[in-house]
Amino acid sequence: MSESFIQSPAAEMIELLEELAAFSAPGEGVTRLLYTPAWKQAQQFLLNRAEAGGLKAYSDSAGNVYGRLDGTGSDGKVVLTGSHIDTVVRGGKYDGAYGVAAAFTALRYLSRVYGPPLRTLEAVSFAEEEGSRFPLTFWGSGNVTGLYDGSEAENCRDAEGMTLREAMTGSSLAGDKSPAPRDDIAAYVELHIEQGIVLERTGTQIGVVSAIAGQRRFAVSVKGTANHAGTTPMGLRHDALAAAAEMIVQLEHSAAEAGEPLVATTGRLEVYPNTPNVIPGEVMFTLDIRHSDGNELEAFCAAAVSAFEEIAKRRGVTVNITARLSASPAPMDRGLSGELESICTRQGRTYRTMVSGAGHDAQLFAPLTRTAMIFVPSRAGISHSPEEYTPPEELAAGLDVLIALLYKLGYEDLNDNGLTPHNTKERWT
Amino acid sequence: MSESFIQSPAAEMIELLEELAAFSAPGEGVTRLLYTPAWKQAQQFLLNRAEAGGLKAYSDSAGNVYGRLDGTGSDGKVVLTGSHIDTVVRGGKYDGAYGVAAAFTALRYLSRVYGPPLRTLEAVSFAEEEGSRFPLTFWGSGNVTGLYDGSEAENCRDAEGMTLREAMTGSSLAGDKSPAPRDDIAAYVELHIEQGIVLERTGTQIGVVSAIAGQRRFAVSVKGTANHAGTTPMGLRHDALAAAAEMIVQLEHSAAEAGEPLVATTGRLEVYPNTPNVIPGEVMFTLDIRHSDGNELEAFCAAAVSAFEEIAKRRGVTVNITARLSASPAPMDRGLSGELESICTRQGRTYRTMVSGAGHDAQLFAPLTRTAMIFVPSRAGISHSPEEYTPPEELAAGLDVLIALLYKLGYEDLNDNGLTPHNTKERWT
Repeated sequence: MSESFIQSPAAEMIELLEELAAFSAPGEGVTRLLYTPAWKQAQQFLLNRAEAGGLKAYSDSAGNVYGRLDGTGSDGKVVLTGSHIDTVVRGGKYDGAYGVAAAFTALRYLSRVYGPPLRTLEAVSFAEEEGSRFPLTFWGSGNVTGLYDGSEAENCRDAEGMTLREAMTGSSLAGDKSPAPRDDIAAYVELHIEQGIVLERTGTQIGVVSAIAGQRRFAVSVKGTANHAGTTPMGLRHDALAAAAEMIVQLEHSAAEAGEPLVATTGRLEVYPNTPNVIPGEVMFTLDIRHSDGNELEAFCAAAVSAFEEIAKRRGVTVNITARLSASPAPMDRGLSGELESICTRQGRTYRTMVSGAGHDAQLFAPLTRTAMIFVPSRAGISHSPEEYTPPEELAAGLDVLIALLYKLGYEDLNDNGLTPHNTKERWT
Repeated sequence: MSESFIQSPAAEMIELLEELAAFSAPGEGVTRLLYTPAWKQAQQFLLNRAEAGGLKAYSDSAGNVYGRLDGTGSDGKVVLTGSHIDTVVRGGKYDGAYGVAAAFTALRYLSRVYGPPLRTLEAVSFAEEEGSRFPLTFWGSGNVTGLYDGSEAENCRDAEGMTLREAMTGSSLAGDKSPAPRDDIAAYVELHIEQGIVLERTGTQIGVVSAIAGQRRFAVSVKGTANHAGTTPMGLRHDALAAAAEMIVQLEHSAAEAGEPLVATTGRLEVYPNTPNVIPGEVMFTLDIRHSDGNELEAFCAAAVSAFEEIAKRRGVTVNITARLSASPAPMDRGLSGELESICTRQGRTYRTMVSGAGHDAQLFAPLTRTAMIFVPSRAGISHSPEEYTPPEELAAGLDVLIALLYKLGYEDLNDNGLTPHNTKERWT
């Protein structure tokens, strides 16, 4: 990389994004799964690029990669920024990799323009977030925040039967023990594509995330009576699909009444016996319900369960609702969100405060430290697909906002930048 | 079989039913598919039993088997009674076989008790009705009534790739040319299990069928937009499953409003991509709509299509509705239905007039000749299953009613029994 200042940080970042996209298993889009060769090459590439860029490059035993700019100040705390390097199968170039490329580029830029910071800054490429190889998610940030202690790796197997432990040991980058959780993070900032259609639909450049929505997922089983479609009068039926259909319409109506940011979805549905001339005897369907407020989320789910039970009773079918996943909402730091809004205003960028409906590494940091997320638009909301896309000027806008926030957190007087010791209880009231 | 009169016709029929049930491919229930060894054995068994019972036994080139009692009268017409000998895969003992066993038993009984009839009576075991081996139905009665001319057999293949023609030729019972349609049938009477729950639910012994319902079947394709379940606000969705659910609820409501005998069913539904955290982009579902009145059926279907299009438009999804099957209603002969009601009254049996929601061989005879169907209860409405069952006393009641009607049609003065030359146009007004 040349020493010239002609290349803007945006151009450097976009070049880095393209280089990362090349580290992929063969096939459409980008496939870069935890501890695979493409993954190792990408992380090794980042280590080398960080080193060459003047950052202190290192990795931990889970395979997370860091580029560190030591601060001249003395509180020993770190401002961390980045995202995850892994992808889904046949994913896009931007999901995770954008935040990684932006983080490493931002630090290199700040270092070259302003010299060493007062507070230590670190760019991170988390090893894994998507759960696309092994049946767990956030393996990278989860090890850093103490969600995992390493014992999970023993019995967790991929589709070929290899354990996470074996794959971890086999990777020259990772070790065979999990790293200790970090307690030196003063703030975590993550830049990410929206993976939704709101920014594009409203013509807005930047999303300032107020919270990552909590999630509840359920499996619903409706059991009626299968019977002959021709010979069973309507009034004598216990049609499991008609019952499920009424529940789905009811859920949609309730979600509309609850208003944003409540979202409720039935994504998967199976009918038994699924034959044109047989009244369905059994239906299974899923619920995916999200809200940024834990109480509202809980209340909505309880009301939905009640409503489904009433429908089932009226129709003479049985309904069983099993909870499958429960993730609490993760509020972002108000001080940092406020600072982001100020930055957008100063930079003349349109922005909106919004809830992140998708989960991110940031949700693991939110209970532990001051956390912020910045969104850029996703074309047509497409993600987890080779069609994933954000125009270069929007990618550049996100980088500019990130750089400004990192400057605030890393280079301004420690007493003035609001990063006083973090009190978790205060932030939750 | 002994010459003794000690065995009632009911006991003889039930024994015959058990003997027929033994002719099956291995496995649960009864599997007796067209032109398979089990099928050939059953038809050959019937030929032998008919001969031994004093009937003139013969088969046609499609493999239909007959037992004939020549009448002493001179109009050359035949009163035909029977049903189909084939089954679905893993079916029950009664569907079709009951009508066959009853027909052959009734003729043997009438012959022994009353001697030769005035009008020729024939019991028939139709070769095929279910469509469970080859992709067509009513191969037996369809050849007799002229629905098929034999050309269909050339290109029609089973799951193993064998053509109907090859299978027909390979069966020692059938020939290689289709038989000519018959024009000598003065009346057709079919005794059958209800395959529904109405008789059992209302505690009624006999169903006098007023008509076989017409059927319309459709494939409905709804296309919306697949999107992230977490990041897409409710108001910006084009959820194909929510749209389909509303259509299904609407169809059920309309069917209830229309009242009996209208039945409307969505039996099969498929969601794409069918993933819990993705808003469904596409749904395919089937419609099976039946009514005994052709105009009502048509009007209901047209209204349903209209309603679906309105729902789709309102939701910003597209809907495509393709007709898959269309069968006209088949009214039964009023004179014969009236006679059946009188017989039930005389025999002290509870009965109700009802529409047959399922298709039967009788529907092919209805446009051509005076046709009647008699139902007996099905336990829990179960059919097409090893669990299919009707208690012996109900089977016996059906046989008694059939015997009484055959006596009326075969042994009473030809001028008094109402079987004047058949005028199709009259019967339809």
